[in-house]
Amino acid sequence: MQLERLQKKLGYQFETLDYLTQALTHRSAASKNNERLEFLGDSILNFAIGKALFDQFPKANEGELSRMRATLVREHTLAMIAREFNLGEFLKLGPGELKSGGHRRESILADCVEAIIAAIYLDKGMEQAMQKVYDWYAGFLAEIKPGEAQKDPKTRLQEFLQSRKQPLPIYEVIDIKGEAHNQTFKVSCQVTQLDMLFIGSGTSRRKAEQNAAEQVLAAITKK
Amino acid sequence: MQLERLQKKLGYQFETLDYLTQALTHRSAASKNNERLEFLGDSILNFAIGKALFDQFPKANEGELSRMRATLVREHTLAMIAREFNLGEFLKLGPGELKSGGHRRESILADCVEAIIAAIYLDKGMEQAMQKVYDWYAGFLAEIKPGEAQKDPKTRLQEFLQSRKQPLPIYEVIDIKGEAHNQTFKVSCQVTQLDMLFIGSGTSRRKAEQNAAEQVLAAITKK
Repeated sequence: MQLERLQKKLGYQFETLDYLTQALTHRSAASKNNERLEFLGDSILNFAIGKALFDQFPKANEGELSRMRATLVREHTLAMIAREFNLGEFLKLGPGELKSGGHRRESILADCVEAIIAAIYLDKGMEQAMQKVYDWYAGFLAEIKPGEAQKDPKTRLQEFLQSRKQPLPIYEVIDIKGEAHNQTFKVSCQVTQLDMLFIGSGTSRRKAEQNAAEQVLAAITKK
Repeated sequence: MQLERLQKKLGYQFETLDYLTQALTHRSAASKNNERLEFLGDSILNFAIGKALFDQFPKANEGELSRMRATLVREHTLAMIAREFNLGEFLKLGPGELKSGGHRRESILADCVEAIIAAIYLDKGMEQAMQKVYDWYAGFLAEIKPGEAQKDPKTRLQEFLQSRKQPLPIYEVIDIKGEAHNQTFKVSCQVTQLDMLFIGSGTSRRKAEQNAAEQVLAAITKK
């Protein structure tokens, strides 16, 4: 059976395979989909990674721990893990998502990994779910360090400007396109130092702001 | 001993009392303070409340679960729990915070409750920490329901405007005062429908935006 191959990749055999099936089902495919599991899995992942960092870095402060965790649980990292499982092959998507390449979309892959974490938790309990997270994250956890690189572009830009006693950047949402679950945001970012408006885009307001901040940082650093 | 009284209120006796002592220590009082515990406790609380809602509302969707959780884990709710424990009496604050009434400040009380959750987790494990959360939250969990009331002001304002095909509100940070850990943000909110700029304030940008959105909603609804 096909899911055997996925379970081998995950390193986990489900007692109740229905949990896994539901975790693989995108909302475009069925009303019994992985959204609720994703909600639960997200919080398990946050706790598991938080605990690992808490133990691994006994001298890191709360801000450093938060930033490292944000790096590890962000969509991009989860999507990398999903690709190791070839998760795209196993996703159940609706016809629209199938056509538009939904099984390669990072947000769909990342959500599915979180849903699988919840599926394991419901199947076998917290300890097992955490153990799997640690197996999948072993490489990332071995590499992560507290420090600058963890800071997101908005934070870096704000700190850069504050250190130079300059006014804070001004972000404005200038456009939102698409339907509720598949929106694209455009955000402008303005800093007094530069005589230009930078436009960032992303699937959420936050991501669009980060994207804009990144461009501003690049422009400032080049100067 | 004084902490006996608090432990009775908490309904939990620590094996290693040091965990509780550290959870009560604000960063203004000592370098070995409750910030790391708060980081860990926050994720335990999120998971515990998420799981309770997941079980309690088998038909609620992810958005409804998220909004209910946001209501239950927000600062104000945690501060209410803190007041039931008379937590302010037991806080260890630095001289500056003591003078400025830090033991009544909601953010300090809320952070301390989260730190205590982590302290119980480190003292006795996940099951016990979750059980305490459920004891403390029994009343709130019994009352919560999916639905409109859970939505925050920014979401409500955005949905209100979208339903009327009007442009989205524009938020701008117009002022930040105070030091890193004790800042006050002022944010303006502008909607095309109203010929006025509304100014919200709060201890974070998000809170200031919510505050501004609330004022706009009130003004729009009065019309």
